[in-house]
Amino acid sequence: MEISARVETELALILSSADAAGGPPLLAQALRYAVFPGGNRVRPRLCLAVSQACGCEQPALANAAAAAIELLHCASLVHDDMPCFDDADLRRGRPALHKAFSEQLALLAGDGLIVLAFQSLARIGESAPLRLPVLLSIIGRAVGAVSGIVAGQAWECEPSVVLADYHQAKTGALFSAATMAGAAAAGRDPAPWRALGARIGEAFQVADDIRDVAGDAAEFGKLPGRDAALGRPSAVAQLGLEAAIGRLEQLIAGAVEVIPPGPGAAALRTMISAEAARFLPKKLARRAA
Amino acid sequence: MEISARVETELALILSSADAAGGPPLLAQALRYAVFPGGNRVRPRLCLAVSQACGCEQPALANAAAAAIELLHCASLVHDDMPCFDDADLRRGRPALHKAFSEQLALLAGDGLIVLAFQSLARIGESAPLRLPVLLSIIGRAVGAVSGIVAGQAWECEPSVVLADYHQAKTGALFSAATMAGAAAAGRDPAPWRALGARIGEAFQVADDIRDVAGDAAEFGKLPGRDAALGRPSAVAQLGLEAAIGRLEQLIAGAVEVIPPGPGAAALRTMISAEAARFLPKKLARRAA
Repeated sequence: MEISARVETELALILSSADAAGGPPLLAQALRYAVFPGGNRVRPRLCLAVSQACGCEQPALANAAAAAIELLHCASLVHDDMPCFDDADLRRGRPALHKAFSEQLALLAGDGLIVLAFQSLARIGESAPLRLPVLLSIIGRAVGAVSGIVAGQAWECEPSVVLADYHQAKTGALFSAATMAGAAAAGRDPAPWRALGARIGEAFQVADDIRDVAGDAAEFGKLPGRDAALGRPSAVAQLGLEAAIGRLEQLIAGAVEVIPPGPGAAALRTMISAEAARFLPKKLARRAA
Repeated sequence: MEISARVETELALILSSADAAGGPPLLAQALRYAVFPGGNRVRPRLCLAVSQACGCEQPALANAAAAAIELLHCASLVHDDMPCFDDADLRRGRPALHKAFSEQLALLAGDGLIVLAFQSLARIGESAPLRLPVLLSIIGRAVGAVSGIVAGQAWECEPSVVLADYHQAKTGALFSAATMAGAAAAGRDPAPWRALGARIGEAFQVADDIRDVAGDAAEFGKLPGRDAALGRPSAVAQLGLEAAIGRLEQLIAGAVEVIPPGPGAAALRTMISAEAARFLPKKLARRAA
């Protein structure tokens, strides 16, 4: 099965389990709304691509890890969009979850997705008890309150913040988790795979800042201009648009260089370069090319 | 070490790991505020009491499970108190977290505590890889979106709700998880321990409803009268105060009866009866005795 299909199939399976008879129906709808239709699923696809490059012989475990990462990402978007943070009306081209349902259900859907991510890892982990603690620890750290997504979001509540720490926690950590979890699901040492994820994450964050200035809602499904409106740290604000685009290209070239050697490295290199081309708004991508 | 000391020591260790250099300081303070000083820690103490009754030879694993349960309980209180739900000013005799810090930090502290609970289980799980998936699954289900705390809270967003389902998800599930996790940490079959937790949880919920009507803020650290003000389902509203007290006594007697037989059963019976005496407001306890 192709990587994208594996991600969607696994997410559909997990959400179906959450639809099991007896749960509160509105919450079940809200969970689905948060996960489907998805964005470009870049993190779980990266996880599976790395697991393939590592010759993973336990695809079910890699699928569960990839899906857990995507569920945690979706949870962070739902909570991020809430009125007390970004107060965003639009997400993936539709009303944000708290607008489509309610603030209460947005809060609960985010919580529910976090729990569901760990539950789905636990379920598959019974068949791979030695790899489960490693995966849990990689993924937990990437979303946690010290150096993960929750920490990244919390840096916005501090009086001052180092831009690199903020981006590393809010974005980089989950990208690193995606590459490391792909390797760990294949039974490989995850450490050498951290740098690849970190660099792709940094590139993705710079691209996100660029899209916020130069993108449009139709292409990316959310309203541009939020960073500036919220006075958020941004690579464009710091470097200017042209230099930010240059930095992005530099980061992607740097990412491809740190792929650990192995039989799957060449295919992974090709896949990552193709992905990265989709990071920029189309009009800028044409100009850059 | 006594059970209460084990709970506090384990929670302190986990929170210290979250204070590790580099995380956002306000969030670290908020996490501590949510966990210390605690309530009566009834769920983690129940978990450890059951693990002792089962002759647990891996106390570190039981400690981690107990602490995870308490962290998840604390997370649910923080999110529950937020303006979009209970909008509670007071918790454990102090300003609720969103009042003491901010709504943003309350949202993030709740998320962070959920992640921390699973991280702390994962950390200790490396030494007990066969018991880890069982513990994760018991605890995940008890807080999840189908039949756990998140589901319980979400029943409040539905147009109609069966009182028993609501209480089972919002309160009973985590009590059942406490007894089952205690058994599972000891390597015992958790299933026979479900009923004990369910009955104690039901009793605790009825006691909570009674306290909301007949308790006072000084004794329980939160303002009474919230259930009625929010039009919440309540055993007192349904049965009346006298019948609710009778029901509570019945449930506690029933709980003690379903303790699975074994060398530790008598001690556990004594401990649970003593605990239950603290469920009621003092003035009612005196009258009931």
